[in-house]
This record gives sequence, structure tokens and C-alpha cells, in this order.
Amino acid sequence: MAKRQSNGNVSAGSKLKVMVLGGLNEVGKNITVLEYENDIIVVDCGLGFPDDDMLGVDLVIPDISYLEKNKEKIRGIVLTHGHEDHIGALPYVLQEISPPVYGTRLTIGILKNKLQEHSYKEKPKLHSVKAGDKIKLGCFTVEFIHVNHSIADACALAITTPVGTVVYSGDFKLDLTPIDGEIMDITRLGELGKQGVLLLMLESTNAERPGYTPSERTVGQSLDNIFLRNSDKRIIITTFSSNVHRVQQIIDMSHAYGRKVAITGRSMLNVVSAAVELGYMRVPEGTLIDISEIKRFPPERITIVSTGSQGEPMSALYRMAISSHDKVELGPKDLVVISAHAIPGNEKLVGRIINDILKCGASVYRDPSVEVHVSGHACQEELKLMIALTRPKFFMPIHGEYRHLVKNKEIAQSMGIEDRRIFVSDIGKVLELDGENARFVGTVPAGRVLVDGYGVGDVGNIVLRDRKHLSQDGLIVVVATVDTDDLTLISGPDIVSRGFVYVRESEDLIEQIRVIARDALEDCLDNNITDWSQLKSKVKDDLSKFLYAKTHRKPMILPVVMNV
Amino acid sequence: MAKRQSNGNVSAGSKLKVMVLGGLNEVGKNITVLEYENDIIVVDCGLGFPDDDMLGVDLVIPDISYLEKNKEKIRGIVLTHGHEDHIGALPYVLQEISPPVYGTRLTIGILKNKLQEHSYKEKPKLHSVKAGDKIKLGCFTVEFIHVNHSIADACALAITTPVGTVVYSGDFKLDLTPIDGEIMDITRLGELGKQGVLLLMLESTNAERPGYTPSERTVGQSLDNIFLRNSDKRIIITTFSSNVHRVQQIIDMSHAYGRKVAITGRSMLNVVSAAVELGYMRVPEGTLIDISEIKRFPPERITIVSTGSQGEPMSALYRMAISSHDKVELGPKDLVVISAHAIPGNEKLVGRIINDILKCGASVYRDPSVEVHVSGHACQEELKLMIALTRPKFFMPIHGEYRHLVKNKEIAQSMGIEDRRIFVSDIGKVLELDGENARFVGTVPAGRVLVDGYGVGDVGNIVLRDRKHLSQDGLIVVVATVDTDDLTLISGPDIVSRGFVYVRESEDLIEQIRVIARDALEDCLDNNITDWSQLKSKVKDDLSKFLYAKTHRKPMILPVVMNV
Repeated sequence: MAKRQSNGNVSAGSKLKVMVLGGLNEVGKNITVLEYENDIIVVDCGLGFPDDDMLGVDLVIPDISYLEKNKEKIRGIVLTHGHEDHIGALPYVLQEISPPVYGTRLTIGILKNKLQEHSYKEKPKLHSVKAGDKIKLGCFTVEFIHVNHSIADACALAITTPVGTVVYSGDFKLDLTPIDGEIMDITRLGELGKQGVLLLMLESTNAERPGYTPSERTVGQSLDNIFLRNSDKRIIITTFSSNVHRVQQIIDMSHAYGRKVAITGRSMLNVVSAAVELGYMRVPEGTLIDISEIKRFPPERITIVSTGSQGEPMSALYRMAISSHDKVELGPKDLVVISAHAIPGNEKLVGRIINDILKCGASVYRDPSVEVHVSGHACQEELKLMIALTRPKFFMPIHGEYRHLVKNKEIAQSMGIEDRRIFVSDIGKVLELDGENARFVGTVPAGRVLVDGYGVGDVGNIVLRDRKHLSQDGLIVVVATVDTDDLTLISGPDIVSRGFVYVRESEDLIEQIRVIARDALEDCLDNNITDWSQLKSKVKDDLSKFLYAKTHRKPMILPVVMNV
Repeated sequence: MAKRQSNGNVSAGSKLKVMVLGGLNEVGKNITVLEYENDIIVVDCGLGFPDDDMLGVDLVIPDISYLEKNKEKIRGIVLTHGHEDHIGALPYVLQEISPPVYGTRLTIGILKNKLQEHSYKEKPKLHSVKAGDKIKLGCFTVEFIHVNHSIADACALAITTPVGTVVYSGDFKLDLTPIDGEIMDITRLGELGKQGVLLLMLESTNAERPGYTPSERTVGQSLDNIFLRNSDKRIIITTFSSNVHRVQQIIDMSHAYGRKVAITGRSMLNVVSAAVELGYMRVPEGTLIDISEIKRFPPERITIVSTGSQGEPMSALYRMAISSHDKVELGPKDLVVISAHAIPGNEKLVGRIINDILKCGASVYRDPSVEVHVSGHACQEELKLMIALTRPKFFMPIHGEYRHLVKNKEIAQSMGIEDRRIFVSDIGKVLELDGENARFVGTVPAGRVLVDGYGVGDVGNIVLRDRKHLSQDGLIVVVATVDTDDLTLISGPDIVSRGFVYVRESEDLIEQIRVIARDALEDCLDNNITDWSQLKSKVKDDLSKFLYAKTHRKPMILPVVMNV
């Protein structure tokens, strides 16, 4: 968590402040703030997924206390595309601030769906734009520039400020044969470069990967092969639900091979219906059928598109794999194609789902030589292209862990950008720019807010530390009633234990614990110690010592002493 | 956990029973049992690492109750090599059974080190053998056959039984330019094939990977390049401590480039000293220095070999990365080479350590085009080679998850082994063979025994379920004293909470919980309900309902009601 600093006024001879509140030294939770005098705009507002040590946490959203304090200055929130790590925090953030929100049609469509699950004091003000549009927000003008990505309708942003133009890449790749026919608008980016770009904020996700990211269309070629060679099988394909173009290709291929397509999984159904409704997906008449209708066709005439590409428990594919999907039963006539890479941390889940699918007798497509997935992010050559086009005066790598940011910095250096013009930042750090110079000038509050159930921010380090402790060795509750006047133990101590040992098979140990707790309490009372905290810490210390020596474990010990 | 069956005598016209007790449908914990009439031998006895859902568990060892019941039949334990997943359960298993143990010198040397940390009623009987040796154990003759692997002195086994020869591959690869000069003994394997092999038990670890695994020597070529191009830097290399040949190459390369080598990390120090002592490592005079001496030489004359290649918290490299290693401080003059792949599940830990190293200003070698690690396991072509050499009548894929076993089965099929001669087994399944036929005939007990601290087997599903529950939403303890004669609440209820919400900021909620618990208790007492379990479940139910509606969380609720 960054340190607070006083939220003073802008210095004379005004400067642009660029503050990244999320997405640096972490993956996801992308949010950037631009401030000039009395105007603020926010770029993206994403969520992050909890680390392994954030036990029980559902989501992570950015700390936006800086924005809450400067509510009245915020002219708008602009969105690059509809992925969770760029828009997913909005359902929570729009509870606290409510400026107008701008994004392309698909982005706004997906956001609308999300917001329906929440209620708002003030109705969110959502505005659709299209690539090429320019909108004026206070002293800023934001231009949406088409880029390729693994979701349709993604944009980079060119933000004109009083001191110069900031180009924010968003997530992008260069796809010369994209499914929707629109190549990233390299011409416009080059024009901006000619006119002069003050700062390029460039995504770093794939900065460690050499070369170019292959076109989405290469996946189509692989799928074509798979469909051709498996004409006797039902084909089940899982991918990221937001990958509209991937699903489009699966539908096209199925149509070409005379197959009906059924969709399963809530998020896949949501995205497909939104994409069809908004015209981002073209489905040949009669191709799409309901999952409940698949029995009406021979298996080899069916393609099923499913969620679960990350092996997520309770996803549609997971339910198929453990034979608990109510419409799809896997068997030897099925081929499952996993059209996605495992996100780091999900490798084991994906491995497990493959095992379970194979145990059903179904095949899993696993030919490592044929690519059934491509990334949506720029590799090194595409990052160089973006730098070459925009020729920025200053450069800031964004979106990634430190190793990604550093690699992106090295790429910028290799393109001739001097070291002193490159700013590897951190969340909350303020970069101040005039037309000529840029420097870090302090920090604003930034950090993580944890969402657990309905609770936003009520789980913090202490709660997580306790959960971790409980998860490792369980707990022992010692309950006793004492009479502090008489200095006698009236009842107990009773021992309740969970997650420590199997109690029924450890009666001796539990009895030993009871005796040690009783001795500790009586020892205190005999010595006239009736102070609650002293009583409790005596019980705790004696038990901890005993249990560690005996079991090499450190359960949480909770003494509860009551007085009558 | 497999079902038990009565442990009857061998049927007339005796047959060989092959029982894999660990290492099928899982990674690690490899152990196989061969039984013929009154003789049993055990092949390997490894440990496994806990899955993510085995909270707080340190290690997993095989259920050996079948061996305990048949103690008097066991003629010996034979070991293929010294990796944890092949010998790591012995420190625990030798507490229960104590037959003689046979392995090559390095294997027995490593095992001896491990056993020193435990004490035994009966002194373990350890015997060193060398590749080529044959030992007689009851009706079995076990021949040790040299193979290449990522640890020195690894063997496959040819086990002659009254019904035919069983070849057990252990972990292996074919390395035509191995560091110790010894190529896998393909000739002997071919001779066995000519004489006739009844059953081949073949490892499946890399069955999904096409081609051949590169020679260990290719890593030397990469290291040579790195040393040549970084003559101005201190070089820190981390790898698996058991990879004696890797460390040998690092030492040789350092010597050639005029560098001293210092070792850091307990397991690395242990292995290097054992390997030097037993003659498996040749260190040029004066090359090895103590880590405390590194300051006496210029950084560019130093190589440090460290543990921590998996990003393990508290490993030597981890301590360097977080600036808490007492001898090594990382800075811009350092290059860190991670000479290992992340084991599935460790990707995030490795990513984190790289970030931390870079933040120290050091470089990390990450050129994806130059291999600084090779696998120790056979890829598809080497698996085919083993099948071609041994030409087995029956085939059983071992060591791996289901997807690996199935892939290995497909490889065997591609080599012309008929489907009915291939047995994809599971732990505890008994394969019965005479010279002509093989079939599954039932199961013996097999499963997982969890080790947590000093406890072996006292953590089971109930304890793990509680740990999981506690880890997700914490707990609420409700303590009250009642007088069941008067039907009155004497004191409390008091609410103690851990891992649920930050209590100091949730006083209202805690008070609501108290009121609901009090109402529940009073409600019972008013209705003359004094049965403990009814009182408790009323409190539990009312609170669960309230809390789920209010917070969407399900903390564990522990009502403790005392009577005076």
C-alpha cells in the first residue's frame, strides 16, 4: 500500500499527472488516472484475481480513495475493452463515484450485463462510442483507436492533454487477418507519432516473448483440420467466453461441416447472446440450437461450445468431466478441444480436468504441434511496432509484473529511447509531465481492496493471517468458567478442536490438552491472577509449547474464559 | 482409497502378483510390490507432495498396510535412484517394516542422510550395489541396469520371477553424451528382450512430449555461452540439488573460466558433500570455497550454486531475492541463471522470485532460445526405444496422472502391442500373471497417508474439510453458560471471531450476532429445550442463515454451551 500524501492543488505552470492505480507489479486490476488542474479522467477500471495467500477472497479491486476524494474533478471513465481486468471493478467503483463511462458498444454491452446484478443510488451513465470517435472530457480529448485483441471492439486511446498527447495501448496485438476484417489502425497511430506523442503507456503482458503473436485465423486452420479428421465424433470445444472471434470461428467451421452448435455455461451463453444481439457475431440460420436439443441430432453432427477452459470447478466442462452435466454425457464418441492456454496458477486444474475427461472414455485434443489457441497480446516485435509508430518522448511500461515491465523497458531501450525517458512506475506513484520534462513527484493512495462475498474491504491482513493460520493447523478452543471472587474454576475447561487432529482417534491428546489448560488456569487463580489477558496468555503459552513439542504443529489456540 | 480384500493365500499353480501401491493417477509416491507365493519384494518407496487442497500437510506417503500385514514375506526393498519420489517415504516406512534395502551407492548415501533425522527400533539394513549386480531375494533375482537420469547412479531393474522377467524402467532417459560417461545400458536391455520379457513397467512422465530429451551436455554448451558473455559478472546458478551432473558442469565451467565456486542452501550442501565423498563429483583442487569467503575474490571470479530453483520460500535464492541472505547481497553486478523448469504448481513462486531478483538490480537469464535446463525423463522416442529393446509380452504404464498413462498406452499400441496386453492400472489393483496370461484379480489396500509435523496419518478428510472451511471464511465461536435446572442463561453469549471480518471495524455485526445467538438460546430455554445438540444446532442454524443473507459468507460456527 502506498503512503498517503496531502492532496494539494496543482502547481503553477500546470502539469499533467499520470497515476497508475492498478496493474503495475501485478496482473490485472488495471486502472490509470490522468489529472490536469481541475480535470481528471480514469482509464479502465479492472479487477484482479486473489493470490494463493488471499484465502477465501473472491476478487481484488483497486483502492480508489484518491478518486473518491476528488470526485468532483472526474470528467469520465474511458474503457479500452470488455475484459474483467479492465472493467470488472466498475460494479463496485460505481457505487462510490458516478462519472459518465465511455466504451465501444460491445464493452458497454458487457458492462451493462454486469451492472444488472447490483443496485445503484445513482443510475450509471453509460455511453457507447466507436473506434475513431473523439470525446471531450474537460481539458482532455480522448480518441478511440481500433486494435486487435482476444475480444472484439478493443481500442487503444490517444488522449490529448494541454501538455501533449498520451497514447495508452490497452491490450492489443497486430492481426493482419483478423476475423472481423479490421486490422489495428496502424495508420492513425503513425499519424499521431508524426504529430508528436508525449507519453506512450504500453502493455507488457507478452514482453518476454520474442516474435509476433500469430493471427487468430491460424486457430481456424487448426480447427479445420480437427473437424476434417474427426467427422465421426461429437466435438466439444472450450475457450474463454469473451473470445467472440474464437466462438465465431467455431460456429463458421461447424456450419461448413454441417454441424449444429450448442452453447453451455452461463458466461458463454451471456457473451454469445450479447454478441449476436449487438451484431458482433454472425450465426448462419438454424446453426445454433439449445443444449437440450442435442439428443435430436447424431453426435457427429454436433459441436458443443463450453466454458471451463481453465478447469474451473463447476464450469460446464468440469461438470461434463465428472459426469454431472445434466445435458452432456461424455463417452468414446466425444473429442474435447481445449482452445486456451492455462493461465499461470491454473495448470493443475487443467491437468485434472483432462484426466477426468479421459476417464470418461472421451479423447482430448493435445497435439502440441498444432496451435488451437493464440494469445491476444503483443509479443516483442509488435511492442516495437507500437513504439516505432508513436515515437514517444516518454515511455511507461504498464500491465504486468516487474519482470514484464523491465523487459518492456529493455525493448524500448533497444528502440533508441533513452533510459532517462523511460519510467518504470508502481501503483500510486505520480508522474508529472509538462511538454518537455517528466519526473516522479510523490504518491497517492493505491492498493488492494478485497471482495469476499458481499463484503468490500472488510477482509484485510489480520483476517487473512488468521485464515492462513487456521488453514495450516486448525484450532483449539479452550472454554472455562471461573469465579474471580472465589478464585475457583467453576466449569471446564472444555476443549473443542477443528482441523487439528481427528478427535475421535486422539482422545488421549485431547485429555492431555485439557489437563494442561486446567493446570494453567488453576495456577493463575492460585496466584491470584484474575486478569483476563494474563489468564488467556498463560493457557495459550503452555498449550502452544506442549503441542509443538508433541506434534510439531501450531494450531490457533483460543481461550475463552467466562466469569459468573 | 482402494477397497480392502481378504489377504488370502496364492492360488494353486502359482502366479505372480504385481501391485502398484503408489504412482498411478498421481505424481510421486512411487512404490510397487511383486509377490510370488511366500516372497514379496518392494520396488521404490517414494513420497508425494500435497495437493493444494491438503492444507497444512507436509508430505504424502503411501498406505503400506498390505506390507505391514505381510511383513514376514518381504525379502527386500530395491531402489532405482535417490529422488524423493522414489525413496522419500522410507524414513517413515522403515518404522513399520524393516527388510533389507538395496540401491546403488549414491542412492544409499542419500538415504542414509535422510534416516539420520529419525530413530528406529531396528537399525535399517542398507546395502549398496552397483549397476550390473544381481541380487537374490527369495524366488526373485533383481538385476540393476544403468540408465541416464537427472541424478547419478540411476538404474532400471530386471526382476527374474518364476513366471518370467519383469523390467521396471524407473525414471530414465537416453543420454548419448552423459556427464559421467556412461550411456544407458541398451545392450543389456536388448539382451533381456531377446531372452523374453514378460512385463515392462514403463515410466510415463514425459509421454506427452514428442521426440527425444536432449542430453545433459547441451546445458553445458548453454552455460559456456553464458559464462563467456558475462565475464564481468558474478554468476549465481540455481538448480535441483540432486542434479549432481548439472552441478558438476557448473563447477567445470567455473574452473575453466577461472572462477571459484561457493555453494549455498542446506540440501545443495548435503548433496555436494555426499557426491564428492562418494566420488560422484570431481572438484578441481581449490575451486570450491566456503560461501563466507566470497568477499575475498572479485565478483566476476565467483560462481554461486544455490537452492531455490522452484522459488521455494526460505530457500537460499529466495533469501537473496528478499535481501535477507547473510552472505550474498544481490546487485547490478549479478546474473542469476535459473537452471530448472518450474514444476507444475510452482510457476507463480518462480515468477515472484524473478521479480524480486530484478528489483535488487540483478539480471536474470531468461533467453527462451537457449536451454539452460533439460528434463531427466524419456520423451516419446525413448519410450519407444525401451519397448523396442525389451519387446515385452505385457505392458503397464507407470508413474503419472491418467493422461500420461493413457498416452504411454497409445505409444505402446503404436509399437504393435495389442490392446489386451496393455494394463492401465490404478493403485491397489492386483495384476496376476503366469507365463502366458495376465489379468486384474482384485485389489489390496492402497491410498494416501498424510504427514503433518510429527503426525503420520492423523490428518484425514474430516480434518482437511475443517481446515478448508476455516480457510475460506474463518470462524465464529459462541460461548454461553446456562443453568439447565433454572432454564436460564447465566452468562454470555460471548462472540469470538477469527478470520471472518476485521472485528474492530465490525462491532455492529458482532453485536447482531450476539443478539441472534442469545435469542436462539433463550428461545430454546423458554421451550424447555436443554438438549445440548439441539441448543447448539439452533444457534448454528439461526446464525448461518443470518450471516449468509447479510455477508454471503459461511464461517464455521462453533457454539460452546456450558452448564453450571
